[in-house]
Amino acid sequence: MSVTPFVIPLWLDLTAVAVGAIQGAMFSARMKDRRIDLLGIAIIGVVVGLGGGLLRDLLINQLPAAMASNWYLPVATAFALIGMALVRLFDKLNPLIIGLDAVTIGLFAAIGVTKALAYGVPEVPAAFVGVLSAVGGSILRDMMLNLPIALMHVGSLYAVAAGVGCTLLVIMASSGVQITLAGIICVLVVTVIRLLAVRFGWSLPEQRAIASWPRWRRA
Amino acid sequence: MSVTPFVIPLWLDLTAVAVGAIQGAMFSARMKDRRIDLLGIAIIGVVVGLGGGLLRDLLINQLPAAMASNWYLPVATAFALIGMALVRLFDKLNPLIIGLDAVTIGLFAAIGVTKALAYGVPEVPAAFVGVLSAVGGSILRDMMLNLPIALMHVGSLYAVAAGVGCTLLVIMASSGVQITLAGIICVLVVTVIRLLAVRFGWSLPEQRAIASWPRWRRA
Amino acid sequence: MSVTPFVIPLWLDLTAVAVGAIQGAMFSARMKDRRIDLLGIAIIGVVVGLGGGLLRDLLINQLPAAMASNWYLPVATAFALIGMALVRLFDKLNPLIIGLDAVTIGLFAAIGVTKALAYGVPEVPAAFVGVLSAVGGSILRDMMLNLPIALMHVGSLYAVAAGVGCTLLVIMASSGVQITLAGIICVLVVTVIRLLAVRFGWSLPEQRAIASWPRWRRA
Repeated sequence: MSVTPFVIPLWLDLTAVAVGAIQGAMFSARMKDRRIDLLGIAIIGVVVGLGGGLLRDLLINQLPAAMASNWYLPVATAFALIGMALVRLFDKLNPLIIGLDAVTIGLFAAIGVTKALAYGVPEVPAAFVGVLSAVGGSILRDMMLNLPIALMHVGSLYAVAAGVGCTLLVIMASSGVQITLAGIICVLVVTVIRLLAVRFGWSLPEQRAIASWPRWRRA
Repeated sequence: MSVTPFVIPLWLDLTAVAVGAIQGAMFSARMKDRRIDLLGIAIIGVVVGLGGGLLRDLLINQLPAAMASNWYLPVATAFALIGMALVRLFDKLNPLIIGLDAVTIGLFAAIGVTKALAYGVPEVPAAFVGVLSAVGGSILRDMMLNLPIALMHVGSLYAVAAGVGCTLLVIMASSGVQITLAGIICVLVVTVIRLLAVRFGWSLPEQRAIASWPRWRRA
Repeated sequence: MSVTPFVIPLWLDLTAVAVGAIQGAMFSARMKDRRIDLLGIAIIGVVVGLGGGLLRDLLINQLPAAMASNWYLPVATAFALIGMALVRLFDKLNPLIIGLDAVTIGLFAAIGVTKALAYGVPEVPAAFVGVLSAVGGSILRDMMLNLPIALMHVGSLYAVAAGVGCTLLVIMASSGVQITLAGIICVLVVTVIRLLAVRFGWSLPEQRAIASWPRWRRA
């Protein structure tokens, strides 16, 4: 299967990075009990904005995109600082941020899957690369802030949304669906699942709940 | 020195991954005080099963094995879920799991050393790659679960067993010993040291104990 | 822009690694409340000595220097053990260690920037690679010891010193300044800023201080 990456314009890619950086900075700026200085907030913003793409390119053994262009780092840094400075304003715009973030996860997922396929990675690991592109920034953020990784605790189906979208994209790409169309469908699916999960408070069954589910234990 | 990797059949490699995934899932399923959902347990299983090989391939700058085949990720995920579902059964089989795990460490160590040598890495770093292949999964697990890294605290000689086996393997490979034979000896040595360490409760001298060892301080 | 790396003699590079390893071991040896064994201290020493270079080479997708030579790992391990054994002696030499460490940060920064430029990384990410080379060891140390990352909390301008030096080096390299001269200036600038920061207790404005700085909020 030969797949060309789902190419998105640079400005759209940088918008996704900027949204991630704003989110990361807002997240760390809210940790009032810790003494994080300006540099720390900028670092977290950069990590959330660029971390997913970095993990993606490490996994597929390619030069990270952020290392191949002069644009990514300044954009991530600038929007991290903006996010910190305007944290009160952005708090009021929270629904907008959540919406943009859902689209951003979808974009990172679609770019990750198609880039992996384009470099010859088989279907299953390609879908994994897509999921890690989407959620890697928040994993790195939690590890650097010394927090429990949000993703692994009862949460709002972040990774599952990305997983469904990436699986769908791999199936479509293998079935010969035109890659731009497949990518757009992936972005839409991830966005909708994520927004529905936020709206209805969906979460995965918790481990303890299952452990006390008698029929399942007997199986 | 030209070394062909210590090739083991795919089913044996996947068995090692499966044992790691079961162990990782059992470990995180026991953390009752934390709210880890199904996804979190699956992630830890995948990390323990595939983490060592991933760090190995990042260090030697090659496409990770798990990214080059459709088999690794599903096997790791499936056995992580099995490990979680059957945690009570596996608890009863604990001696068997410890035995399999000791062999698994040996296999990862032998594969790591010979793969590194095969890609032109010199002897000393090749032995290091072998050790990291063996223990990398548990390091990543502890970092992701926000725990102190077990390896660095007074423990049961996990890394030392791998270190002795990897050093021996590098010496044998440099001396022209046939690589399959050298690999098997490495696996045996690691397994035996690890099992003896568990049996007799061996551990490295603790830092404070040494600090209060007067003759040593005078040296 | 074609840049040859700022080549320093192997003994000087290894000296920088040794200083890092001593510092890392001293740092972890002082954590008396934790039960860290000899292996743990050696690991932290190796991580601080080699971590920056490792992150640098991962970012620019090259085989890590420590994997390409038999010298780095033994030097880092030996000096980590020496640092642990002689922690009292080195405590008395603290000003010397701080001075050597400042030079070491400068060296890692200069090597990181020029190596990145030499492999075709553009100016902005090349400066970033230089900063990460300088501070990466201490970030990895804090993540492995499960500590808040010192760099992100109100501290002593570690990363800013490296940032100024790396930016300057990139500008000089782009302006055609001879690379050895540019590298030496970078090392000097980083060293001087770092030592002045230690001497006068400089730190970045804290997040909370800024949040309560009325004029800035109005801007």
